[in-house]
Amino acid sequence: MLAQSVLLHCDTIEVRLEVGPDIVDITSALNGCIKRSGVVSGVLCASVVGSTGSLTTIEYEPGVVSDLKDAINRLAPPDGNYAHELAWHDGNGHSHVQAALMGPSISLPVRNAALRLGTWQQVVAINHDNRGRRRSIEVTINGVEG
Amino acid sequence: MLAQSVLLHCDTIEVRLEVGPDIVDITSALNGCIKRSGVVSGVLCASVVGSTGSLTTIEYEPGVVSDLKDAINRLAPPDGNYAHELAWHDGNGHSHVQAALMGPSISLPVRNAALRLGTWQQVVAINHDNRGRRRSIEVTINGVEG
Amino acid sequence: MLAQSVLLHCDTIEVRLEVGPDIVDITSALNGCIKRSGVVSGVLCASVVGSTGSLTTIEYEPGVVSDLKDAINRLAPPDGNYAHELAWHDGNGHSHVQAALMGPSISLPVRNAALRLGTWQQVVAINHDNRGRRRSIEVTINGVEG
Repeated sequence: MLAQSVLLHCDTIEVRLEVGPDIVDITSALNGCIKRSGVVSGVLCASVVGSTGSLTTIEYEPGVVSDLKDAINRLAPPDGNYAHELAWHDGNGHSHVQAALMGPSISLPVRNAALRLGTWQQVVAINHDNRGRRRSIEVTINGVEG
Repeated sequence: MLAQSVLLHCDTIEVRLEVGPDIVDITSALNGCIKRSGVVSGVLCASVVGSTGSLTTIEYEPGVVSDLKDAINRLAPPDGNYAHELAWHDGNGHSHVQAALMGPSISLPVRNAALRLGTWQQVVAINHDNRGRRRSIEVTINGVEG
Repeated sequence: MLAQSVLLHCDTIEVRLEVGPDIVDITSALNGCIKRSGVVSGVLCASVVGSTGSLTTIEYEPGVVSDLKDAINRLAPPDGNYAHELAWHDGNGHSHVQAALMGPSISLPVRNAALRLGTWQQVVAINHDNRGRRRSIEVTINGVEG
């Protein structure tokens, strides 16, 4: 147990994403938040604002990115029939389902003033919407400086 | 970095859910927890107690609710064959699988004394069980008052 | 609101997992972290290090374990075609997709100096990789002692 008081840092990062599923690496941006916070050890919670985005971790290389897009489109195919469409006609019924199944938030460990991830593990933001979107991701860091 | 000490608030909300998949909006109840806590900025962690429930966010309108139920039942169909049934005969093998894939917990940002969500983004609790359930959701808020 | 200052405890547990999908119960190990921390009320964030592992909760009995393995292999079949394979030839394209869909992290409530879970709800670590792996899981506990 660290006897120091825990401090709080709130931050926001903005990401530009193309038509979904689009997947971008936000690891560096999150480590930038940690640097600004001054926190050395603790936890970082990130959450995408909006109901057609999600967060997870992957090995960010083109093959996995492509494979994950395919799997996401199997979970809720863009050409499926969606009740959301009957009322809203905006063509993104699949986007809502995909994002809900993936989940909007992630909690990751901060160690040595950076995210503690595997060597080939990056944090990614995913846009599931059927149009490009500028996404806000809210970041909250709880931790200690020492 | 906010120099104020972080405070902690623990709370519990109770939700009545029908036969799964049933999906209810718990956003107001969570914002009630934040109000009781006095926290203005921080993070809220919510977790459903029990292995056949889950939490996520959606645009809570009847179309998306219906589409998400369909997708959940594709992940683990109620009429599939489950090893859990062979031992327990309680008819909810699919419920356990669905809930495990969705996950029991969510971490969301608190800003201006409320959850920071998109305009059309609500937090939902899902019952995957094959009977109606009263669900406890444990809520933990870390944050500062200022 | 508890007026005590929130304290922080960082810990690591190591788990040996067989060829994926393999699923092990880490509830006792996490409760051991809580005991070491001295925290009575708060939140525990756990995150698997590496991009082919995940965390969730299940009723840890052989039937559900078997059913969940089947469902995971439906999400991304081991014998599918993966772009990751074309570049890397390590046979674990499905592993990356499965882990990304499940997610690496979980946040759970600490009450009465232990995880607050359902009676038949355990926390599990999952290896999705196509070979046995020793996994590190980073554990961060925020909470109060009283």
